[in-house]
Amino acid sequence: MVKQYSVLNQEQGVLEVVERQLSDLNLSPIRVPIDVERLGSHPMFAPVPWGYDHKYNLVSVLNPGASGKSLVFNGHLDVVPATPFEMWTQRANEPWRDSEWLYGRGSGDMQSGVAAMIYAVQAVREAGAEIRSPLTIQTVVEEECTGNGALACVERGYDGDFVLIPEPFGPTIYSGQLGVMWFKVLCQGTPVHVQDTSAGEDAIERLLLLIPALKDLEAELNEHHRVPPYDQMEHPFNLNVGKISGGDWASSVPAHAEFEARLSFPPGMTASQFMQMVSDRIESEPYTATSCHAVFAKQRPVVRFEGFRSEGHLIDV
Amino acid sequence: MVKQYSVLNQEQGVLEVVERQLSDLNLSPIRVPIDVERLGSHPMFAPVPWGYDHKYNLVSVLNPGASGKSLVFNGHLDVVPATPFEMWTQRANEPWRDSEWLYGRGSGDMQSGVAAMIYAVQAVREAGAEIRSPLTIQTVVEEECTGNGALACVERGYDGDFVLIPEPFGPTIYSGQLGVMWFKVLCQGTPVHVQDTSAGEDAIERLLLLIPALKDLEAELNEHHRVPPYDQMEHPFNLNVGKISGGDWASSVPAHAEFEARLSFPPGMTASQFMQMVSDRIESEPYTATSCHAVFAKQRPVVRFEGFRSEGHLIDV
Repeated sequence: MVKQYSVLNQEQGVLEVVERQLSDLNLSPIRVPIDVERLGSHPMFAPVPWGYDHKYNLVSVLNPGASGKSLVFNGHLDVVPATPFEMWTQRANEPWRDSEWLYGRGSGDMQSGVAAMIYAVQAVREAGAEIRSPLTIQTVVEEECTGNGALACVERGYDGDFVLIPEPFGPTIYSGQLGVMWFKVLCQGTPVHVQDTSAGEDAIERLLLLIPALKDLEAELNEHHRVPPYDQMEHPFNLNVGKISGGDWASSVPAHAEFEARLSFPPGMTASQFMQMVSDRIESEPYTATSCHAVFAKQRPVVRFEGFRSEGHLIDV
Repeated sequence: MVKQYSVLNQEQGVLEVVERQLSDLNLSPIRVPIDVERLGSHPMFAPVPWGYDHKYNLVSVLNPGASGKSLVFNGHLDVVPATPFEMWTQRANEPWRDSEWLYGRGSGDMQSGVAAMIYAVQAVREAGAEIRSPLTIQTVVEEECTGNGALACVERGYDGDFVLIPEPFGPTIYSGQLGVMWFKVLCQGTPVHVQDTSAGEDAIERLLLLIPALKDLEAELNEHHRVPPYDQMEHPFNLNVGKISGGDWASSVPAHAEFEARLSFPPGMTASQFMQMVSDRIESEPYTATSCHAVFAKQRPVVRFEGFRSEGHLIDV
């Protein structure tokens, strides 16, 4: 699995490995597509600019219809990019061992977990014990960016009373989760020759003015929106400007710039409420205009919500 | 020529068009390579991360060895990127006319000029007049990023007493020029999961701290380094952060970020003196450390000088 470098939209290799493994273990894998026709209107669906024709989740159902509480094993097959590769001491998708540890992108988060949950079933069988309760194995795509893979499984009814997710967190009962939102912020500029930079409008400079506006929102969340148990944590809501790009030439005033960011939000706040808060900071005059009215007078920046649109939740355990 | 979108390292199409034109007009084009073996040690050579095996300049020499002052017509064939294309109302490399004006990337800067200087020779001939003095036509690559094309021509002896450059500046006698320097600034970070951003070091945030350091240098140049005639101009030295990129994933603390910038400097200051000034601002503790010592304590940012390394000059006319 680690050898298959399963970043976004390159999941085919790892899906083939897992499908073959499930088949070899007589676990009858079912391909569960991410069907945008069905899921597109689901309130938890995360809109994305790519398509879903060529990827799917793999599900294996044991003892359907049996009595007793039902259990789901859920793990994801996708990994986040391992770039820049030159910061690795070895090849990122060539697994290696160092005494007890397996290295290589995805071995920690969470392909070891996926292997463990599948082989746990096999181990029980080989030990001669019988699994009688309903048990569903879900191996999903896009845990790292949308959650649309797991959503598709649940929406098709591959659900249960309990779920065990062998993410590398140690043995923990998860009773809550923050909301997570991804978004892009885009600015245009007016490109001119660098000889007279003041004649143009610098898209990178304009874009960078908006990071403080989002830092303000992050601070506001941490000051005024801490529902328990997050009131006990020092800084539960984190903004990450994870990717930036802008301009195309050192000697041209940049005409376009954008960043991609992730910001978490409290349980109880809906995704649409939070999207409005983000949009207000970026697109609405009362916020960004306070410090930089003139800069954005002619053309406002734009926010595009793509990827995670996951609301938080709290369960009373 | 405009149809050939001749951005950096895609100059082949326009070179073929111009070579054919020069041949058709009996102007016997000579290919002048950019020979790094010869030019690499030239003090004016601009080091670059790409190679020169597949591009060249085109030169045509009339009346070599004739008596009289010699004239050079010089024009460049390369264009700066026209991206983002969606800001164009028509296709950037599909020329179109609007009454008296020709549009399309390169038609202004400066392929009309190149066409005009070549056809000026032809027009004089067709008028029945004879050109008797030495005249060299130089059409060069990489005017927009290094100057290595024109340097190669001069180093091979394709030089003259006067030069006419039909850039779109109107009829002007150029008696001076600012120095121009390109450089990249690179920062690494420590990538971590966004759940605990404070555990990592954000390469984008680190990088952005360095733009004010360069703005300081720009201000210092404009305050304290204005030799005449630049003392008469409002803001002769301009910094342009023209390109930025960093990070690879909205939910990962960015591990790498860099920008490409251009900054001009006064005649009389050598390229190496100026490079030292830029390096000091970015890499040396006394400058960047004043405001952000802790951030750069473990790992300094790096400056890489690629592209323009052109000193300024002043000629007494």
